[in-house]
Amino acid sequence: MIIILSQDFDQQELDNLITWLENMGLEIHMSEGANTTIMGLVGDTSAVDINLLNALDCVADVKRIQEPFKKANRKFHPQDTVISLGADGAAKIGGGNFMVIAGPCSVESPEQISQIAAAVKDSGAQALRGGAFKPRTSPYAFQGMQADGIELLLEARKNTGLPIVTEIMDLNQLEFFDEVDVIQVGARNMQNFVLLRELGKIKKPILLKRGFAATIEELLMSAEYLMAGGNEEVILCERGVRTFEPLTRNTLDLSAIPIIKELSHLPVVVDPSHATGVARYVRPMSLAAVAAGADGLMVEVHNSPKTALCDGQQSITPLQFDSLAKDIAAMRVAIGQCNEGI
Amino acid sequence: MIIILSQDFDQQELDNLITWLENMGLEIHMSEGANTTIMGLVGDTSAVDINLLNALDCVADVKRIQEPFKKANRKFHPQDTVISLGADGAAKIGGGNFMVIAGPCSVESPEQISQIAAAVKDSGAQALRGGAFKPRTSPYAFQGMQADGIELLLEARKNTGLPIVTEIMDLNQLEFFDEVDVIQVGARNMQNFVLLRELGKIKKPILLKRGFAATIEELLMSAEYLMAGGNEEVILCERGVRTFEPLTRNTLDLSAIPIIKELSHLPVVVDPSHATGVARYVRPMSLAAVAAGADGLMVEVHNSPKTALCDGQQSITPLQFDSLAKDIAAMRVAIGQCNEGI
Amino acid sequence: MIIILSQDFDQQELDNLITWLENMGLEIHMSEGANTTIMGLVGDTSAVDINLLNALDCVADVKRIQEPFKKANRKFHPQDTVISLGADGAAKIGGGNFMVIAGPCSVESPEQISQIAAAVKDSGAQALRGGAFKPRTSPYAFQGMQADGIELLLEARKNTGLPIVTEIMDLNQLEFFDEVDVIQVGARNMQNFVLLRELGKIKKPILLKRGFAATIEELLMSAEYLMAGGNEEVILCERGVRTFEPLTRNTLDLSAIPIIKELSHLPVVVDPSHATGVARYVRPMSLAAVAAGADGLMVEVHNSPKTALCDGQQSITPLQFDSLAKDIAAMRVAIGQCNEGI
Amino acid sequence: MIIILSQDFDQQELDNLITWLENMGLEIHMSEGANTTIMGLVGDTSAVDINLLNALDCVADVKRIQEPFKKANRKFHPQDTVISLGADGAAKIGGGNFMVIAGPCSVESPEQISQIAAAVKDSGAQALRGGAFKPRTSPYAFQGMQADGIELLLEARKNTGLPIVTEIMDLNQLEFFDEVDVIQVGARNMQNFVLLRELGKIKKPILLKRGFAATIEELLMSAEYLMAGGNEEVILCERGVRTFEPLTRNTLDLSAIPIIKELSHLPVVVDPSHATGVARYVRPMSLAAVAAGADGLMVEVHNSPKTALCDGQQSITPLQFDSLAKDIAAMRVAIGQCNEGI
Repeated sequence: MIIILSQDFDQQELDNLITWLENMGLEIHMSEGANTTIMGLVGDTSAVDINLLNALDCVADVKRIQEPFKKANRKFHPQDTVISLGADGAAKIGGGNFMVIAGPCSVESPEQISQIAAAVKDSGAQALRGGAFKPRTSPYAFQGMQADGIELLLEARKNTGLPIVTEIMDLNQLEFFDEVDVIQVGARNMQNFVLLRELGKIKKPILLKRGFAATIEELLMSAEYLMAGGNEEVILCERGVRTFEPLTRNTLDLSAIPIIKELSHLPVVVDPSHATGVARYVRPMSLAAVAAGADGLMVEVHNSPKTALCDGQQSITPLQFDSLAKDIAAMRVAIGQCNEGI
Repeated sequence: MIIILSQDFDQQELDNLITWLENMGLEIHMSEGANTTIMGLVGDTSAVDINLLNALDCVADVKRIQEPFKKANRKFHPQDTVISLGADGAAKIGGGNFMVIAGPCSVESPEQISQIAAAVKDSGAQALRGGAFKPRTSPYAFQGMQADGIELLLEARKNTGLPIVTEIMDLNQLEFFDEVDVIQVGARNMQNFVLLRELGKIKKPILLKRGFAATIEELLMSAEYLMAGGNEEVILCERGVRTFEPLTRNTLDLSAIPIIKELSHLPVVVDPSHATGVARYVRPMSLAAVAAGADGLMVEVHNSPKTALCDGQQSITPLQFDSLAKDIAAMRVAIGQCNEGI
Repeated sequence: MIIILSQDFDQQELDNLITWLENMGLEIHMSEGANTTIMGLVGDTSAVDINLLNALDCVADVKRIQEPFKKANRKFHPQDTVISLGADGAAKIGGGNFMVIAGPCSVESPEQISQIAAAVKDSGAQALRGGAFKPRTSPYAFQGMQADGIELLLEARKNTGLPIVTEIMDLNQLEFFDEVDVIQVGARNMQNFVLLRELGKIKKPILLKRGFAATIEELLMSAEYLMAGGNEEVILCERGVRTFEPLTRNTLDLSAIPIIKELSHLPVVVDPSHATGVARYVRPMSLAAVAAGADGLMVEVHNSPKTALCDGQQSITPLQFDSLAKDIAAMRVAIGQCNEGI
Repeated sequence: MIIILSQDFDQQELDNLITWLENMGLEIHMSEGANTTIMGLVGDTSAVDINLLNALDCVADVKRIQEPFKKANRKFHPQDTVISLGADGAAKIGGGNFMVIAGPCSVESPEQISQIAAAVKDSGAQALRGGAFKPRTSPYAFQGMQADGIELLLEARKNTGLPIVTEIMDLNQLEFFDEVDVIQVGARNMQNFVLLRELGKIKKPILLKRGFAATIEELLMSAEYLMAGGNEEVILCERGVRTFEPLTRNTLDLSAIPIIKELSHLPVVVDPSHATGVARYVRPMSLAAVAAGADGLMVEVHNSPKTALCDGQQSITPLQFDSLAKDIAAMRVAIGQCNEGI
C-alpha cells in the first residue's frame, strides 16, 4: 500500500499515523521528493481501511498494490484447487477437470426432475442443478417447491448418481441442505455476509455466483468470507453483469475467466442461461466459455421449456443439451491440443 | 399485457394459451392485422410470467403495459403515505413532511454516539442513524458493535428523544430490533426476499435502500414484498447506482425521486454520503435532493471523521451538518414557494 | 506519477527506463522497501504514456497522482472562467453568473423559432438554443434544416437579442457557423478529436457536452483539446450517462457538478431534457441542478411539443418554462443565501 | 408498431393521428378492450418517430415490434454477406470465411511495420491493420504518423500482399484513403453520422466498430447509414463495452456475436486487444470469440510491445501471434465439426 502525503502535511498528525501503522505490524518506507512525499507500507495491509486513511488531512491519496484477499489468492496458493463431488468423488472440477452441471431452473414435479436428471446424465452431465428455494422479483410469482424440491433432487440423485447443486436463500433453510452436495449462493446473495460467514463454517462445497453488479475483486472477497471460516471448497460462477444492452438479460463477462484464474486458484464455472436469458444463445456462449478456459458450465435444461414455471425462455431441451455436450467435449479436445502447442 | 403472435403460429397451441389465460381470469382481445396478430390481456396480469409466454412458439413478443406492483402503486393508492416515528409520532415523513436522518456510519462507543446524537438533535435532525451490524466487503474489517451497538443507540434515543434507524443484515438478528424505530434493509439485501417477506409480517417502518444495480421497478417490487405481507410503512432510499465513473463511489440517481413519486405513494429519502463516498460532495447533493423533491435525507455525521472506524471519508462533521441543516430548511422554503407558484 | 517495480526487475532495463524518463525532464525518487521498490516521478508527466510503462517487464504497476489536463485544471487557474456572450457581452456564465439557455430541439420553421425565441426571452432566458444540423440514430429520420436552420436562428437573434447556441456535427459545416455565438459539440462528438482540435483554433465559445459513456476526466481531456489550441472559452455540459435504468433515457449525474467545479475553472451547464428524455422530469432536475451548483441550464422548449419533429417527448411548453424560470430564480436566491451562511 | 391509447383519449386528436399515419402509408388495426384501446400499425414504420407519438396526449405508450434497420436486416437479406479484399479478392470474410486481421496499434516506422507485416503474414493473417491517424484522449500524446503512416502501410502491402485496414477520423482525411483496402470507423466515431453518410457513398469495405456504450441496435443503425448510401460492404466489430469492472479496459460482449448474426447478414469481427487492454487476455478471448461464432478477429501485434508508442500493454508479440493463429485454426476445425454434428 502506498500513501501519498499532502503537500503541507502536519508533522504531528503524520507521526500519529506512523505510530498507528507500526502498531499494526507494518514496516514503513518514506520517499521524499521535491513536491511529494510517499510512504510505502510493507506487511499485511488487508486490515487497513483505505477510507480511513483517505480521511486524514495529511493524506492526499492511497494506492493499494496488493489484493485484499488472501486465502483465495493464487499468490499464496499457486496450485489449482480441485473439488470432488459425490460419494465416490468421481465428479471433479478444477486443475484440468471440467464439470458440466445441468438441470432445470426450478424443481417442479417428480416426473419433471427425474426425466431431466436421467436425460442430462445420459448426455454426460456430471452434476444436477435444480432450484427448490427460488428468489423471484415478484412476491406473487412461484417461489419454488422449497423443502419438497430438495427431497425430489435427492431422489433424482439416488436414481442417477449425479451429485446435486441447489440454492440456499437464507440461513434458516440450512437444515434442509444436509444431504445436498453443493450449496449455491445466488447472485443476489453474493454479499449476504452473514450467510457467507455461516457457510464458511460447514464442510460442503459452495458454488458462489457473481452478483450482477459485482466486480471480480468483490467476488473474490466474498469467497474470502467463506474461506476465512475454514471452508476452502469454493466454486466461483460468472453469470453476467448488468449493462445498458437490452437484447440480453445481462452481459456475460467471459474475460472474468482468465482474470479469476490468474488471481485465484479456485475453479470457475459459467452460467450462460441466466447471463443471456435466451435459450438460443446458450450454445455459442457455452462453447465460448470453454474456449476462454472455464472449469465448468452450469446450463439450464428443461424437458418442456414452454411450460416451465420459471425462466423457460432460457432453457434448452435435453436434445439440444445432448448436442451441446458433444460439442463441449470436442471443444475441450481442441483446447487441450491448443494448450499443448504453446 | 400485449402478446404479439408469431407470423405462422399453430392454432392448437394458441387455443391452449387462450384457455390457460382465461383460467387465470384474464379477458382477451384479439386484433388481427395483415401481418401481425396481437392479443391484449385485460385483468390482473401481475402473476403472469412473461418469460413463460416468451418461451412459447406461438408468441413473438410480450409487452407489459401495467406495472407489476400493486400495493406500492400510486394508481391504487393516490394519497402519499405518511409515516410517523417515535413515541409521540412527532417525526413524520411523506405527504409534505420532510425528515433528516443523521448519525455515524457505525456506532463505535458510548461517547461517540451520545455526542453525535446530541449534536444532530441540536441541529434539527429528526432521527438518528447508526450502524450496529455492518456489511463489510472484507471479512477482516470491523464488523460493527452488533447487539451492543443497538443498546448504545437506544441509550442515545433515551437522552435525545430521537427515533433510531439501524440496519438488519439477517433474520437471526431480528430479536435485537424489538425497540428499534426503523429497520434499515441495506442495498446488498434489497433482493433478500426471505428477509423482506419476514419483515413484511412485523409492524415497524422499514427503510429499504435501492441496490446499487437495481432498477427503480425492482426497488418497488422489493417494497411490494414488504407490503404484500401487511407492512405498509416503507421508506424508499436512493443511494446511487454503479456506473463506469470512478470519481464517485456510485452515481446518485436523483431522477429516481420524481419517478418514484409518480409511480408510488411511498416516501423517498436520499443518502448522499454512501452515493458519493466523499464528504465534500454531501452538501451539494443534499440540496439537490431537496430541490428534486425528496421527502428526506440520510446523512452520515461523525464527530471525528478522521478516526471513524468505517467510511470516515464520507462523513461530515457536526459543524458542517449544522450549516447543512440550515441550508436544507432554507431550500425547503424556496421549494415550497416554487410549488405555490405553479 | 508512481512506478512500482517488479519484484525481480532487470537492472539494465531499469537503467534504460531511468535514462528515458530523465530525458523527458523528469526527476526520479527511488524508495526501496523489503519487498517493493517504488519510483516517484516529479515534473510534468502529462506526456508520459502509462500503457507504455505498464508494458515493461520491470514495471509491476503505475499510479498517476496528477490529473492529465493542465489548461482546464483549477490548480493552475484558480479563478472561475467567466464567458460573455452577445454583442454587448451582457449574457454571462461562470464566476457566479447563471445562464439559462432555452429553445427547441430542432429549428423547424420561421414561425416556430420566432415564437419560441420571443417566449423564452420574455421568461428570462439569456440564450437561445436550436438544432440546425441534427445527429439522428436513423438515416431515415429528419436530419435538421441545416444551413437554413442557422439562418432562422440568426433571424431570431436579430429580433430578440438572444445569443444563439447550435450544434456542429462536422468540420465541413464550419463555414455556416461564422455568426453563431456558441458552437455546441454534441455528446456523440465529445471525442471527435479532429473536430475539437480545429475548434480550438477559432475564437468563439464552445459548449462541450459530456459523452453518455464518458468519465468526467475524459470530458476535461476533451476540453483540454480545445484549450490546447488556444480557445479557452469552453462551457461544459452534463447531460446524463448511460446506465441499466430504463425509465429515463440516461441517468443525470449531478455529482459531476461539484466534481468538475473542484477540478476545473470552467463553467458547467446541465441539460435535463436530453438526460431524462421526459418533459415532466425537466423541472425537478433543473431545480436540483441549480441546487447542486450548476452555472447554467439548457432546457428544451417547444410551442407545440406534440408535433415537434424531434424529441417532442422531452420538451416543455413556453408556459411551463415561464414557471420554471421563476422557480430557478427563487432557487438561486435561496442558494445564494445558503452560501452566505456557511 | 403498437400504440396504446390513453384511457380517456380525445377522439378528435385520435382522428388527426390516424389521418397522419395513413398519409404515411400505414395500415391501422384497432383493438378495443374494456380498459385499453390498442392500435397496430402495419407497413414500413422505420420513419415513424416514437418520441413524437409518445408526446401526444392520446397516446399512453408505443411499442416497436420491428427493427428500425432494413438494409442491414437479415429478414430482408437472409444470405450472409461475403466481403472479398485485395487485388485478387482472395481474402474473404463472412459466409463461413474467417479472417484474421493483425498488426500494430500504430504505424511507427518503416522497419516496424514491415517486420510486423512479414511476421503476421507468415503466421497466416489475411489482412494487416495499423493506425496512421490515431484518436488519443490527450492532446499531448502521439497522434499517429498520419498520411506518412498510410504510405508505409501501402509499402507493407506491396511487400506482403496483405490488404490493409486503417482508421479514418475525419472526412478531410478521406483523400489519403484511396488505396486503402478497408476503412475503419473507430468506436468514438460510430455515431459520427456525417462521416458515415459520406462513407456510404464510396465503394470500399468499411470496418465499423461498436461504440463502447452503444447498443447492438445502434451499431446496426450506424451500419444502416453506410448501407442506405449504397455501400453494402460493412464489417461489424465488437470491441467491448464500458462497465463498472476495473480489471479490464472494457467488458468484451461476446453474446453480441450470435445476436448480430441473428439480426443481420453482415460479418462480425472481434477485437480482443482493445476490449481487454491486457495482452495476456488476448489469447483466451480470441479463442472464445471463434467459439462464439465470430467471422474474424482483429488482433494487435507488435514486435516490441515494450516500446510501442501506443497501447503496448495490449499487444502480443509475433511469436505469441503465431501460436495463437495455430490455435485459432484448430478451434475453427473443432467448431466446424461441432456445427456438422447438430
